[in-house]
Amino acid sequence: MMIIMRSNATDQQIEDVVRTVQANGLRAHLSRGIERTVIGAIGDGRPVDKDQFMYLSGVDRIVPISRPFKLASREFSPLDSVFPIDGMKIGGDKIVIIAGPCSVESRQQIIETAHAVREAGAHALRGGAFKPRTSPYSFQGMGEDGLALLAEARQATGLPIVTEVMSQEQLPLVLEVADVMQVGARNMQNYSLLHAIGSSQHPVLLKRGMSATMEELLMSAEYILSHGNQRVILCERGIRTFETATRNTTDINAIPVLKSLTHLPVILDPSHSIGNWEFVTAIARAGVAAGADGLIIEVHPNPAEALSDGGQSLKPERFAELVTQVRAIAEAVGRSVAPALPQLSQAALP
Amino acid sequence: MMIIMRSNATDQQIEDVVRTVQANGLRAHLSRGIERTVIGAIGDGRPVDKDQFMYLSGVDRIVPISRPFKLASREFSPLDSVFPIDGMKIGGDKIVIIAGPCSVESRQQIIETAHAVREAGAHALRGGAFKPRTSPYSFQGMGEDGLALLAEARQATGLPIVTEVMSQEQLPLVLEVADVMQVGARNMQNYSLLHAIGSSQHPVLLKRGMSATMEELLMSAEYILSHGNQRVILCERGIRTFETATRNTTDINAIPVLKSLTHLPVILDPSHSIGNWEFVTAIARAGVAAGADGLIIEVHPNPAEALSDGGQSLKPERFAELVTQVRAIAEAVGRSVAPALPQLSQAALP
Amino acid sequence: MMIIMRSNATDQQIEDVVRTVQANGLRAHLSRGIERTVIGAIGDGRPVDKDQFMYLSGVDRIVPISRPFKLASREFSPLDSVFPIDGMKIGGDKIVIIAGPCSVESRQQIIETAHAVREAGAHALRGGAFKPRTSPYSFQGMGEDGLALLAEARQATGLPIVTEVMSQEQLPLVLEVADVMQVGARNMQNYSLLHAIGSSQHPVLLKRGMSATMEELLMSAEYILSHGNQRVILCERGIRTFETATRNTTDINAIPVLKSLTHLPVILDPSHSIGNWEFVTAIARAGVAAGADGLIIEVHPNPAEALSDGGQSLKPERFAELVTQVRAIAEAVGRSVAPALPQLSQAALP
Amino acid sequence: MMIIMRSNATDQQIEDVVRTVQANGLRAHLSRGIERTVIGAIGDGRPVDKDQFMYLSGVDRIVPISRPFKLASREFSPLDSVFPIDGMKIGGDKIVIIAGPCSVESRQQIIETAHAVREAGAHALRGGAFKPRTSPYSFQGMGEDGLALLAEARQATGLPIVTEVMSQEQLPLVLEVADVMQVGARNMQNYSLLHAIGSSQHPVLLKRGMSATMEELLMSAEYILSHGNQRVILCERGIRTFETATRNTTDINAIPVLKSLTHLPVILDPSHSIGNWEFVTAIARAGVAAGADGLIIEVHPNPAEALSDGGQSLKPERFAELVTQVRAIAEAVGRSVAPALPQLSQAALP
Repeated sequence: MMIIMRSNATDQQIEDVVRTVQANGLRAHLSRGIERTVIGAIGDGRPVDKDQFMYLSGVDRIVPISRPFKLASREFSPLDSVFPIDGMKIGGDKIVIIAGPCSVESRQQIIETAHAVREAGAHALRGGAFKPRTSPYSFQGMGEDGLALLAEARQATGLPIVTEVMSQEQLPLVLEVADVMQVGARNMQNYSLLHAIGSSQHPVLLKRGMSATMEELLMSAEYILSHGNQRVILCERGIRTFETATRNTTDINAIPVLKSLTHLPVILDPSHSIGNWEFVTAIARAGVAAGADGLIIEVHPNPAEALSDGGQSLKPERFAELVTQVRAIAEAVGRSVAPALPQLSQAALP
Repeated sequence: MMIIMRSNATDQQIEDVVRTVQANGLRAHLSRGIERTVIGAIGDGRPVDKDQFMYLSGVDRIVPISRPFKLASREFSPLDSVFPIDGMKIGGDKIVIIAGPCSVESRQQIIETAHAVREAGAHALRGGAFKPRTSPYSFQGMGEDGLALLAEARQATGLPIVTEVMSQEQLPLVLEVADVMQVGARNMQNYSLLHAIGSSQHPVLLKRGMSATMEELLMSAEYILSHGNQRVILCERGIRTFETATRNTTDINAIPVLKSLTHLPVILDPSHSIGNWEFVTAIARAGVAAGADGLIIEVHPNPAEALSDGGQSLKPERFAELVTQVRAIAEAVGRSVAPALPQLSQAALP
Repeated sequence: MMIIMRSNATDQQIEDVVRTVQANGLRAHLSRGIERTVIGAIGDGRPVDKDQFMYLSGVDRIVPISRPFKLASREFSPLDSVFPIDGMKIGGDKIVIIAGPCSVESRQQIIETAHAVREAGAHALRGGAFKPRTSPYSFQGMGEDGLALLAEARQATGLPIVTEVMSQEQLPLVLEVADVMQVGARNMQNYSLLHAIGSSQHPVLLKRGMSATMEELLMSAEYILSHGNQRVILCERGIRTFETATRNTTDINAIPVLKSLTHLPVILDPSHSIGNWEFVTAIARAGVAAGADGLIIEVHPNPAEALSDGGQSLKPERFAELVTQVRAIAEAVGRSVAPALPQLSQAALP
Repeated sequence: MMIIMRSNATDQQIEDVVRTVQANGLRAHLSRGIERTVIGAIGDGRPVDKDQFMYLSGVDRIVPISRPFKLASREFSPLDSVFPIDGMKIGGDKIVIIAGPCSVESRQQIIETAHAVREAGAHALRGGAFKPRTSPYSFQGMGEDGLALLAEARQATGLPIVTEVMSQEQLPLVLEVADVMQVGARNMQNYSLLHAIGSSQHPVLLKRGMSATMEELLMSAEYILSHGNQRVILCERGIRTFETATRNTTDINAIPVLKSLTHLPVILDPSHSIGNWEFVTAIARAGVAAGADGLIIEVHPNPAEALSDGGQSLKPERFAELVTQVRAIAEAVGRSVAPALPQLSQAALP
């Protein structure tokens, strides 16, 4: 940490800061410029709270030097993390596509969608059983019944299941069914939940909070990693900005920047990022062109009747077209989309 | 809800939208302009998901008409909600001041601070036992031991206690000690927690999420209200913007705007809103001038040694000065600060 | 425009609004819901200032129906605008690449860069002679001398010139040299300048302001179009958000959304959008994948010695690699990069 | 400037950076921590472009140490700048109130408003003759005729005139009439204009750009100061954020923070900051409570017929009430509103 003194700081003030630095078990390293003195506080790598230095007289501001995340950093682990989820691998050369409805709404809806996205080339099925909704009066998900239907859809199609967990209490239930637990944007800094998830060994898809910086996303991943769970997938899903023409602003910059900061896989959710089905395919292409390791896409057999997020859901045939276009982009960047699951035997079809 | 058609929408598309509106049990009301047709979808006040209409051909965009919150709205309850917290009342003419450290750090620290803020004129003691911290390596609060120390501080000073609850699991513990539970900014949309809190009858201080709109804050209040708990205090604590000179941007506009939209008490946390002790008093004055019903202020006997938020904490003597200044502002706006608690007998002093 | 009344608006207030609507030469169209009344104000397409209705008693808010831009809209002109700039065409199938240094710094620098980007496949040369700089103490550009060097670079390479104009007074000078005038982000709402540019017939590259909505960008284009100049190229260059890991946030959503709203060509400036050379190529790929009609890229022969924007400039060899990668993406989306200029004869080389 | 190396930077890379620092005429000062090396680049106070260092291998990021503004800084000039505008003084203890319509619309409107605001206690008259409007189809101001009417209003009431200048070309005209030139938010970084204004000796009211940081506002002031004009008034007028319930977000933090960074007077425009007349008075009170040196308020005799900004304009009687309330707040913070102008003789009244 560098402590930047005001230009009119007195020698006494500088001395006091140096003494406080040393009292915290750090070495102090003075650098006197024409206008200002900077005091480097050099430690052993353990985090030090910068806040207490802000209070000392004559201090202008504090600049952290080390990044606050360790286990998530590429410096800690230079090679890309790759880990299996059921049969498929995430984090390597092959781009993985997760697709399905926002919410599980009925047996027919989820089974039909599962078959449709499987056929179009998806590698996993998404679907919410517990839904965080802005309004207490909106559909809150089918809960346990929804989980049972997801289990059935996996049974029928072999697709691994990605589904959201909203609280510690739901965790045991969700762990029974989910191949990948999803932590939603609104819970990215629900530390009680992150802690609990970190204690499991289950893959997690961690969505970026809608106003979380990339560093904060990595710090939330660090919570999970530091509690022992190494299988974290990061997901950009759009941030909140002043722009109202779209639901969120896809932070496409986050794809290459996160990939440079961390070894964890980074995927994009174009459906929430732009919030309008017409543009989802364009943003999906952009994500893969920018280096994303995967995509998560909302697909619904009949978006006009969806109980949530209908406006940003693709019909199955449009999703199939998206997969085709994403394949072309993947090849253009020297990668490929992971192979589709083998065709189901006639008997297995609905 | 108004459904605005594209300017080149066909009659067939308009007819399809009308039919879908009616199929949802709503009346459709057409308004044809020179350029565009607008279809009003008129219901019985129950919420309708606008998303499904976004998908229909020829639709440009959807504009909601009703506000999505009901119980929280001033239209539902025109008079200011006033409710007691221990001896004091919140929500009326009298401005209430809550003060104390970010975290409970030790017996001495919390008892000393409690006496100091009581003497300066505070009406309640804040202090975190469970702390949401961005880094898993930072001090996470004293937990249950911290709660016990808060109980002791209340015993010693008679100050009601405001302390944060981070998860459903902590709720029973926190309810034993807290006079007011606090929901932190990061948990404003933790709906599992809001649901649980709504089922208790305990006062709640609900902090605005750092990128939550005022409407979303009111929707989170609605979660609590709709589960039966009417005692919700809203708290502006700064929002996240592009400005980096301050920790957050105090949304001072939110004070009068929220007061016009809701009957619930609205208070300001100037400490987090600006994040630098030097400016906390100025922002506290602004908050009361704008119409806030109360303040929550970070005070620490020795900010330079605080384990969290030292940089934005006031020393007790500065806090006493803040109370004096806020009293003057309160009178200038025709209100007053709630009377200080009576002096403790000599015997009760530490 | 729809005027949404408060839920407790009186009949008298509704009547007053209706009268005011009619007094403005508009038809009023009432729609009474259970909770609220909405009054449609239907005109002949001429813009009406909504502000005056905000003031009337009982009004909750005003929702505009028509989009405020006309000439820029796809509804006005459904087919993509394509227009020539020197030999090349912009706005059609072929993707156009503009490249060059942030500022013209010396004869050698600009001529060398011009040859390098031409050889790598660029179709036009960018370079600032007049530079808007945040600090009055920073290099402000070479001014007229810089323009003369740009003219020389065009002479030497045949590349059309893209250069910024900062004020009406510079306009005649810039018009002599520029094939495309650039309006910088900070001047996007400098209406005096837009008005003057609209009166010329010269192609303009209009950069989005750093906190301008897409609609505001289109309104600024409308200023130019409505003064008679139809040759406007829109340029996304990153918006300002809370994220500090990157210089700006590339609003990749703006590419497909603008393309759907307007017939004008839309290009991306990945250099400013992300602000770090390491990631420029990834964002350039994303832009073309999302549907951009062109790119504008900062290239400098020796970025470590650049007088401005060195940190986001590519060396010529990296730029050549970018062009190769962008070609692959262009093909993956069924387009192609415009053909490179024919090789210069030996005699013409420096 | 501190150059922070990556944790895996090699000795060679560190040496290269040191050499580049020295080649720029700066001293290099090494500080080696456990994880990272930091290189201080110490100069003589002249600005150095950090961008070029970003490009060197092994560099993680650059942290500026000195603030980029000099003449505007409180370190340069510790005492508050106070300067006269006609009879009144701005920048001292006395709070100054500027009021008037958004635009000059007619002789009657401006003269009537001038008398009304004068009587209510305003010290200067605002009114736009040249109006920057988002739409080319909106009323653009009365131009020169508007200036003439402003001159007449000054003649009639003795109120000094504050009016906007949008371009260098308008400057001579505006200088003839304006006692204070206003630079609007959209032109805050129109450097050609700032340069020209800096060369005059006329007081300027410089509005903060809608996404400008406080530092950028001070840099724009620095442009004016460094060209020789010392009479700059800074004006907070709301920033652009994600919140849509209000036109802008009043950055109330900017009041005390700017006052600590600069000696220049700082005023608040509550009308634009919140954008709704109902809340203007509350925000005006907050501004003065936070330490503002003045206010600028939109007042219109008949807001429902205003050609611009009707929704945020106060009627004269409400403005009079605002002045009364602001007086009470000013006294509560130990200041006072500047004395009202003496009553006009009967003969002078309209």
